[in-house]
Amino acid sequence: MIRIGVDAMGGDYAPKEQVEGAMLAIKQIPDIIINLYGDKQEIAKYLTNSERINVIEAPFVIPMGEKNAIKVIKDHPESSMAMALSSLRKEENDAVVSAGATQALIAGAHILVRRMPGFKRTAIAPLMPSVSGKETILLDCGANLEIRPEHMLQQAYFAAVYAKEVLGRPHPTVGLINIGTEEGKGREFDKEAFYLFKDKGLFEFYGNVEPKECLNPPCDILISDGFTANIVMKTIEGTAKGMGTILKRELKSSLAGKLGALLARKNLKNFKKAMNPEEIGGAVIYGLYKPVIKAQGASKAYGFYNGIRQAANVVRSDVFGKVRSYVEQHKAEFGNEE
Amino acid sequence: MIRIGVDAMGGDYAPKEQVEGAMLAIKQIPDIIINLYGDKQEIAKYLTNSERINVIEAPFVIPMGEKNAIKVIKDHPESSMAMALSSLRKEENDAVVSAGATQALIAGAHILVRRMPGFKRTAIAPLMPSVSGKETILLDCGANLEIRPEHMLQQAYFAAVYAKEVLGRPHPTVGLINIGTEEGKGREFDKEAFYLFKDKGLFEFYGNVEPKECLNPPCDILISDGFTANIVMKTIEGTAKGMGTILKRELKSSLAGKLGALLARKNLKNFKKAMNPEEIGGAVIYGLYKPVIKAQGASKAYGFYNGIRQAANVVRSDVFGKVRSYVEQHKAEFGNEE
Repeated sequence: MIRIGVDAMGGDYAPKEQVEGAMLAIKQIPDIIINLYGDKQEIAKYLTNSERINVIEAPFVIPMGEKNAIKVIKDHPESSMAMALSSLRKEENDAVVSAGATQALIAGAHILVRRMPGFKRTAIAPLMPSVSGKETILLDCGANLEIRPEHMLQQAYFAAVYAKEVLGRPHPTVGLINIGTEEGKGREFDKEAFYLFKDKGLFEFYGNVEPKECLNPPCDILISDGFTANIVMKTIEGTAKGMGTILKRELKSSLAGKLGALLARKNLKNFKKAMNPEEIGGAVIYGLYKPVIKAQGASKAYGFYNGIRQAANVVRSDVFGKVRSYVEQHKAEFGNEE
Repeated sequence: MIRIGVDAMGGDYAPKEQVEGAMLAIKQIPDIIINLYGDKQEIAKYLTNSERINVIEAPFVIPMGEKNAIKVIKDHPESSMAMALSSLRKEENDAVVSAGATQALIAGAHILVRRMPGFKRTAIAPLMPSVSGKETILLDCGANLEIRPEHMLQQAYFAAVYAKEVLGRPHPTVGLINIGTEEGKGREFDKEAFYLFKDKGLFEFYGNVEPKECLNPPCDILISDGFTANIVMKTIEGTAKGMGTILKRELKSSLAGKLGALLARKNLKNFKKAMNPEEIGGAVIYGLYKPVIKAQGASKAYGFYNGIRQAANVVRSDVFGKVRSYVEQHKAEFGNEE
């Protein structure tokens, strides 16, 4: 059985949606056990079926928006997030899912889970919606704002293994986010990354991709430094939100618009669904000792369930084990001489 | 009369749309004269009304996608783009509009128009659509991929003058594009820019803005380095395009959807219009000796007309003159000691 540790107290609607998401996951996924970390009394309010679900008391909740993420996680080993994360090194779980504060989760993952041997920099990799319906892996969405190209090489390799093993893409391709498609475009950093990716041949490298194609990219994986990819992710989110607002307003501005929207309500619902991150799952933190999945803070039960499902898929396909053994056997290729 | 130089041969649909845009501009804007640079015979095919329009023969057209932008513009002083740009220093025009190759236009502007005295780095500043309908100035969209915060200070000041004088915002506010809103977020570069903007008090500084709010920002101006802002611009474009495709597909997927779309066709048209860059105008290159406006490569007549209208507004409100005299009088504030 795959054991998933769940931070039941992290997230805007915790623990209700987390507990309901866990029960949904148990119902849908036969080969998992869930360990819920949190306030037993609070969890009991929503836990109507505890089949294959254990509850472990965690008396503290990491607050959202805490400025000093490292301090808060270090100071509170009894928090639901820290306890869930610590369980990975203790071999009590195979993966952890949390919708709690992002910065605290990253800090906690580094301190309590630690990196995979030979892996220099972690990366946060959400799945983005696309026109084709096939998710795009976007990274690094904020783990390392400033990074060296050789560390991105490991991250891109990790993404390629993930795409193959979890998303079922037999020949995953990696694109470098850039302001132009030609070779030699971008900052010095982007040029270095381009030539390194091209030379090493560790994965199928597509070349530069402009974010004009962010929802319809010619590759499976879009990569840049942790600042740039985070900006791309948030711009997609902001544009989708803004356009949704404008569309709603325009449709409501006349009777014909209202009637049209009523007639096409199923279609509009599907449109909204196509852009909804909850449909897809969370963001995986690459390069840790074991998988940690960051679910959206605003996750409802279904979205959180998708995060758990994703965690189970990552464990089942042994993405972390495969990357780990490759990295250990090919230290030189990743510039791990230091 | 305001004299606008127009590169009639630059753009995906040149010279047809450029000539028609010029004729539309003459009709709508009483205080302008247009000088069209290009192939006289080609232009004559579309020029049905030459009132206040002069045609100046330019035998060469700068090709789109030319890799060596500096070389192509230097080698072809007889091109429509180079001739239009050169006219600014010769005091034959007050502003230039071109929908030609971006990199060549930037290179040409630097070589043939040159910078405003005391202005260290130019910036490309398109106007972006927003939920409120009030355009947002986004910069730098690609003139300086790597830049020092003190040079961004000048650019932000320029944008503030533009917002006040051309967009009619009495108290324009500047936001720094960042991955979080708190002070101290982002790369070292972003932190430096934050404190510099805050300390100098040259304009109203809003603080950090996440691109989650790119279509509904809490400020008039969004600024970052030339790589980041270009990525934001292209991600907005890509998301809008992708969402448009998904919406269309969903609406066409059933009879009810098709009927609904038919009923709400005016509303959907307005929705599309709200996100169309053609409605807004081109991108102004800040910090040159005189204004150069880059219209969208795919501009049709109406979009190109909006670029000309914008150029006339910039000249009429003397944005460049106002910034120039301020920068000359306050050299120290902009770190112009070097």
